[in-house]
Amino acid sequence: MTTAAPSVSVYLSNRGNSIRQTQGILQEGYAQYLMDKHHDAKNPYGIINMGTSENKLCYDVLGKRLTKPDMPHFDPSLLQYSDWKGHTFLREEVAKFLTHYCCSPNPLKANNVVVMNGCGSLFSCIAAVICDPKDAILIPTPFYGVITEDLQLYSDVKLFHVPLDCEADGKDSRPFHLTEGKLEEGLKRAKQEGLIIRAVILMNPHNPLAEIYTADEMIAFLEFAKRNELHCIVDEVYMLTVFDESVSFNSVLGIDSLPDPQRTHVMWGMSKDFAMAGIRIGTLYTENRDLVEALAQLGAFHGVSGNSQHQVAQLLQDREWISKEFLPENRRRLKAAHSYLTGELQSMGIPYLDRHAALYVWADLRKFLREPSFEEELSLWKGFLRHKVVVSCGQAFCCSTPGWFRIVFADQQHHLQLGQSLRIREALKEIEGSPDSHAIREASDESEKSEKEDSDDSDNAVVVNSTSSPESKSSDQLMEKDCPVPDTGPLDTGDLVLLDCQASKPDSLGSLIGTLRHQIHSSDWLEKNTPELSAGEDPQILDVFKALLQRARK
Amino acid sequence: MTTAAPSVSVYLSNRGNSIRQTQGILQEGYAQYLMDKHHDAKNPYGIINMGTSENKLCYDVLGKRLTKPDMPHFDPSLLQYSDWKGHTFLREEVAKFLTHYCCSPNPLKANNVVVMNGCGSLFSCIAAVICDPKDAILIPTPFYGVITEDLQLYSDVKLFHVPLDCEADGKDSRPFHLTEGKLEEGLKRAKQEGLIIRAVILMNPHNPLAEIYTADEMIAFLEFAKRNELHCIVDEVYMLTVFDESVSFNSVLGIDSLPDPQRTHVMWGMSKDFAMAGIRIGTLYTENRDLVEALAQLGAFHGVSGNSQHQVAQLLQDREWISKEFLPENRRRLKAAHSYLTGELQSMGIPYLDRHAALYVWADLRKFLREPSFEEELSLWKGFLRHKVVVSCGQAFCCSTPGWFRIVFADQQHHLQLGQSLRIREALKEIEGSPDSHAIREASDESEKSEKEDSDDSDNAVVVNSTSSPESKSSDQLMEKDCPVPDTGPLDTGDLVLLDCQASKPDSLGSLIGTLRHQIHSSDWLEKNTPELSAGEDPQILDVFKALLQRARK
Repeated sequence: MTTAAPSVSVYLSNRGNSIRQTQGILQEGYAQYLMDKHHDAKNPYGIINMGTSENKLCYDVLGKRLTKPDMPHFDPSLLQYSDWKGHTFLREEVAKFLTHYCCSPNPLKANNVVVMNGCGSLFSCIAAVICDPKDAILIPTPFYGVITEDLQLYSDVKLFHVPLDCEADGKDSRPFHLTEGKLEEGLKRAKQEGLIIRAVILMNPHNPLAEIYTADEMIAFLEFAKRNELHCIVDEVYMLTVFDESVSFNSVLGIDSLPDPQRTHVMWGMSKDFAMAGIRIGTLYTENRDLVEALAQLGAFHGVSGNSQHQVAQLLQDREWISKEFLPENRRRLKAAHSYLTGELQSMGIPYLDRHAALYVWADLRKFLREPSFEEELSLWKGFLRHKVVVSCGQAFCCSTPGWFRIVFADQQHHLQLGQSLRIREALKEIEGSPDSHAIREASDESEKSEKEDSDDSDNAVVVNSTSSPESKSSDQLMEKDCPVPDTGPLDTGDLVLLDCQASKPDSLGSLIGTLRHQIHSSDWLEKNTPELSAGEDPQILDVFKALLQRARK
Repeated sequence: MTTAAPSVSVYLSNRGNSIRQTQGILQEGYAQYLMDKHHDAKNPYGIINMGTSENKLCYDVLGKRLTKPDMPHFDPSLLQYSDWKGHTFLREEVAKFLTHYCCSPNPLKANNVVVMNGCGSLFSCIAAVICDPKDAILIPTPFYGVITEDLQLYSDVKLFHVPLDCEADGKDSRPFHLTEGKLEEGLKRAKQEGLIIRAVILMNPHNPLAEIYTADEMIAFLEFAKRNELHCIVDEVYMLTVFDESVSFNSVLGIDSLPDPQRTHVMWGMSKDFAMAGIRIGTLYTENRDLVEALAQLGAFHGVSGNSQHQVAQLLQDREWISKEFLPENRRRLKAAHSYLTGELQSMGIPYLDRHAALYVWADLRKFLREPSFEEELSLWKGFLRHKVVVSCGQAFCCSTPGWFRIVFADQQHHLQLGQSLRIREALKEIEGSPDSHAIREASDESEKSEKEDSDDSDNAVVVNSTSSPESKSSDQLMEKDCPVPDTGPLDTGDLVLLDCQASKPDSLGSLIGTLRHQIHSSDWLEKNTPELSAGEDPQILDVFKALLQRARK
């Protein structure tokens, strides 16, 4: 915690003071960001946001659909009080949509759908009705940290962490590998501490790992929950945000026969897959009537505008648009942006978990810490902020090892370029220059060495370990911050290896321009993305960018 | 409590079971209503809703405005996460709007505005941050009963009731008269019971009384709160729903110098004044920064769709439309509907509190109870439900005396006619015919007598006691259920008098047709309202209704 928590207020209760003082580790950064947002034209030196998991790549596609004539709609019933679980017409569309995209073996039922203003509200409500105050819910770490507040603020429910190790521990293992065994161990430990555990939270695709669990893995986790009579809250808000054709996502709603359907509750929403966090729509699918009834009682606090419900229903029923326009284009752009960012990481010698889902990359910046502590991690994060780029550090996700960062790539490429290629690079360079950072200097020496060996060929650097083939993970390797990278041949499986990205070939940190030019040459991103102007973009930016592009190509 | 509460679920926690089992007294009726909604064409024998406080009179006016080209709007920022207190553009418009319509002596500030998805959410949040669990908040009864759940479900805060007597107790008093003294007494009693009271809730205009408190009265209440270091939550959601030109409403935001600005928090929203409960917009105005900060932390659970925020901002800034189109027309229609319903009540000999605000009338049906008990009140309420009309009984508002009902009049006249003139009348007639109801039969005898005395002149029946002149309330009079109405001349100030409506002249309960014809002749309601079809209305209905109108006029 770095910002001073606000002082105790005489106007608030103890609970109120504690709510007011709750500050996520990143709050300071977001506060700064809100006051100094980057804007291409109006505030070019403002903060670039690579921290919030938002998809900013498809507003033009969305804009076309959302301005079609079926969207604005006036009907008195939309202005009236309605079913607090959501209008029937929307719940029907959600059921049909999930049936289709989750490949459900049987048609899902509108009656099992609860719609609320976001998945945070669903987490809060579910915690309130399946837990008593001070009860706890199991969650593997790292995890999307906001869930802590979702369960805590209103419902006074704790999370019990099951830490996943960033190092693969043997054959068939992979970094941050979640297994039934680890869940069992975690549960045992929680019970030893006298906690009452009511549920386990699983995310698939995972936030922040972007890991996709196979159907078999998910079934194993669900069996664990069943064995222990735990509810299983499965968060699938990134289910359509998978941008590698060779990777298939399996929703638990597609499982033929769920181990414990009465305790399996599946979340989905519009925020990530349709880039519409602002429309405030989260959905829950559960066969448990008691849960639905209890949630309905809390629904009045989490109601969604009738008009937004109409729009979302229109969108979800437009299967043609979703499957043939939005998803392919969205995936193509995500893939290109992911490829740009990971190319940058590779060129900077930064290992990362190579996954092809969600909107972010989980990157290993341990070598830039002067010592393996969360203070150091925070100090690095602040360094980025000083260089006007906000990302998320691992501590915000309760990661057990300091030095990991979540970097969001789903943004216009000139923002990525500014944020990653310039500002993050500069921040790291500054650390490199600081007297304490022997490790970094060594890593940097190594970088230069690698560059000599591999010349300009970094674009061919192959990243391994796609979640579709977990078996291939035996070569997962880990770069230990305190030890310099060895300059001998192939990387071994000891403690000095690159994680999940084979032999990344960082160029000299000094040759920034060269890297930029290289990226521009080796990527087809610009060709695919700059000619069209996204909605809301300043036209001047396009011109400036095109000019830069021409110059870079010379 | 009449419906069996759901049994204990093994899937829910104790808290969850208790949340699920929370059932308002009226829930059964609304559940029935939802399954059997009246629809003019599709379900003409379905249940008429005169229970939910919704304004259904102006959808045509609203529809015209809400379908104007400025309403649908695409902007990426509306699809993104935003300030959980509401977009700045909306908070600015709310501040300007309140400055104008609350006649604030100084411009109100956007920074002091918090926007959430409804006032229920605001109640829940405020309770969470100014109270600890089990603390309590003072509230005069009767009051809008849902507040009980708003404070209880998430925040575990109780209401402590300050009962207002339905009988005026002396000079300068009026029925259900709230005074500083009563608040002081209530607070003393609460403290004696060992409760920690953190705040007092005031509603102006009041729900369900439709009472409008003067600025002096409100200042006195605020002084009480200040003296006792209580927060004062002022609910002004009906502030523009005042339809008598001679009555002026004074918002506490218009007070020159608030007694305790740091503890004065004013609620308003779109649900009532703009008939848009479905858009889920509630606003709070408070100068207390600590409170704003604490609410902001909970805001993520109560976010509003960016698109709806845009629409509401467009509406609120259209001062021309609000002041020159919507408000005058809305008030005219409300006045006519109110006049129709109160005419009916008068013709049926039912006393009511004569106020000219909000969307409902608080009516005294005590004479229809076989004994003064809440069981009897509920039984009468169920009688209405059997006759396919749902209203709200006093118990739902924690009224201390059984027999009072809140009847919503803000609906199309043919619905009022069906609900009030036919179904409620029939239900009461049925009770009249039942062997136990000696009082009712006597009342009915009296009705017939009155009718003879006053012939067909009931339209001139003057109702007294408008809130603009509380001094005139010394003649407020009360009909005591167990005693027959005296058949002698002018009503006296004893215990057998009509409350707040001077010498109502009920016609014979048998001459229903005559009354209908009379109403049609004596009211200009039909002329003003039927020719235009409201949005969503079935055109056939208009034809049928016009034909009926013609026949009735013959």
